[in-house]
Amino acid sequence: MADIANRFKGNPILRPGDIRPSHEGFKVECLLNPGVFRFQNKTWLLLRVAERPVQKENFISFPVLEDGKIRILKFDKSNPELNLSDPRIIIYKGTTYLTTLSHLRLVCSDDGIEFTESGHPPILGQGNTENYGIEDCRVAQIDGTYYLTYTAVSGNGYGVNMMSTSDWSNFRRHGMIFPCPNKDCAIFTEKINGEYWSLHRPSDVDMGGSYIWISRSKDLEYWGKHKCIARTREGMWDSERIGAGAAPIKTEKGWLEIYHGADANHRYCLGAMLLDPNDPSRVLARSKGPIMEPIADYEKEGFYGNVVFTNGHIVDGDAVTIYYGASDEVICAATFSIEAILDTLKID
Amino acid sequence: MADIANRFKGNPILRPGDIRPSHEGFKVECLLNPGVFRFQNKTWLLLRVAERPVQKENFISFPVLEDGKIRILKFDKSNPELNLSDPRIIIYKGTTYLTTLSHLRLVCSDDGIEFTESGHPPILGQGNTENYGIEDCRVAQIDGTYYLTYTAVSGNGYGVNMMSTSDWSNFRRHGMIFPCPNKDCAIFTEKINGEYWSLHRPSDVDMGGSYIWISRSKDLEYWGKHKCIARTREGMWDSERIGAGAAPIKTEKGWLEIYHGADANHRYCLGAMLLDPNDPSRVLARSKGPIMEPIADYEKEGFYGNVVFTNGHIVDGDAVTIYYGASDEVICAATFSIEAILDTLKID
Repeated sequence: MADIANRFKGNPILRPGDIRPSHEGFKVECLLNPGVFRFQNKTWLLLRVAERPVQKENFISFPVLEDGKIRILKFDKSNPELNLSDPRIIIYKGTTYLTTLSHLRLVCSDDGIEFTESGHPPILGQGNTENYGIEDCRVAQIDGTYYLTYTAVSGNGYGVNMMSTSDWSNFRRHGMIFPCPNKDCAIFTEKINGEYWSLHRPSDVDMGGSYIWISRSKDLEYWGKHKCIARTREGMWDSERIGAGAAPIKTEKGWLEIYHGADANHRYCLGAMLLDPNDPSRVLARSKGPIMEPIADYEKEGFYGNVVFTNGHIVDGDAVTIYYGASDEVICAATFSIEAILDTLKID
Repeated sequence: MADIANRFKGNPILRPGDIRPSHEGFKVECLLNPGVFRFQNKTWLLLRVAERPVQKENFISFPVLEDGKIRILKFDKSNPELNLSDPRIIIYKGTTYLTTLSHLRLVCSDDGIEFTESGHPPILGQGNTENYGIEDCRVAQIDGTYYLTYTAVSGNGYGVNMMSTSDWSNFRRHGMIFPCPNKDCAIFTEKINGEYWSLHRPSDVDMGGSYIWISRSKDLEYWGKHKCIARTREGMWDSERIGAGAAPIKTEKGWLEIYHGADANHRYCLGAMLLDPNDPSRVLARSKGPIMEPIADYEKEGFYGNVVFTNGHIVDGDAVTIYYGASDEVICAATFSIEAILDTLKID
């Protein structure tokens, strides 16, 4: 199966050095996985910005939030009880920390290619479900309100929190809508059969796996009728874990969802599935091979290499432009023909 | 800290041989963790009955449900890819199965001591979230309706499903109310501040742990505002995982919850915590030591030894009679003084 993405010539379109740190003495290490939306005739990205203090030789230091304040934790790298084998996490005496603290930042663009900071204040973690930061925000526009669903990380686990806004200056926090362990929550942008629907990704490592689930809601805050709709596939590119990208795209054939899948080597590709227009818990078809793979240099090498990961896009007729994180370090974009994606789908 | 349980003299009050198998050729291996309620002036237990085919030498066989029908899977015990080190599960090539299939069965009693089968049909798993059975049902009576929250197990993981009934003959299935991995769901029997509340137990093994959470609902089917309220405690009897028992008991000092905790050796004890009467997400106090430990012979030896586990009780003035599973094999009962439990609680 071919990679059918048309990558922007200017990729990466944003690098860590393009964004100011949120605190003095911090360095932006990675830009990741933006939510994407249109507002006031511009295209906006809600970036995940991952920061830490400028590192000193022989030590690893990282920030956490405590009662809304930054606290820096620091370990001597020679400490034998420290496990630093994964650049994203620190394991110390059985406790897992993140090497960086993520927050969300707005950038905007007239042409969808050149983005600059909008001047809005950074959106930082708040409360004790967000002590280790907030990540990978999807933005769903429903009836004039933007619903932000993002991964909230703390020492109690990672779950999906939601906030909403109409003007991007005032935000309402709705709390955790999917309890730990959960991420990759993409809300459908319209009701189906009188209810809201959302894709999400619990991880049951004992009995199940990291699969895509669907749930229903009357008010977007309280969710039920949880169902697993798609599992990992043994021996394939999405054998280890899968998760939804942004809100499904409405097409004549059904809801088209671009999702990510990783194999046992943690190589992240993108694929697609088609959901029944009237009952999106029914998967009608799923692409056998990926529609996009990490093949460009900036997708193969970086903070965490061999990753393409998207959770935001703009649809314009047959064209869908995805904005995506490459190698967990830089922001890129690529355009697909929706028709071409649908052509890759095989009826299960 | 002392064990303050007054065990029934006739313990165990029910053994696997007391209950007829649900299918010919099956053997009831274990009776576990009953839900408890009052109905028509009797005390009722909703037992978890764990069955499998009568075992043949050199083989292990177990049932699963497929489209509502029993299918028997069978492995040669000498298969080197088989891991049978835990009597509750079978791990084969990375996939986990349960050694028994559980369903729910009603028994009733005039005196709360001698129980006999009521003649109601077994309540079996239904649909593809319950292929591996249904377990450990809590029963909450709210406004004349009984809400049954239980662990639904399938190859997609284990989550909390709910059904409701008013007459114990007709049941309404409400689907999954807490997605995988989740269990130990105990709904409060009255609204607090205009909403329903529930304790439950997600397990985030990457970043968090197996902790007790609380959530809110307007209709008992759709849940939100998830919060972790109690964590495991390092070096203590509840160091590895904790989970709620039955619905919290309303006292003058607050909501009293009897919960289970296990240590790294999988020894299960019972403890107690007190929740704020007006905001049950606030833990006011927690017992330092267990209020009950597996010390009787039938609690120390059995299908899975060193386990006392409760998810059902009857309150009568200062007395709470818990019905509990001992060693994952037999049903027992014990009475506590609520005042004596409250005395064990220390302000955190």
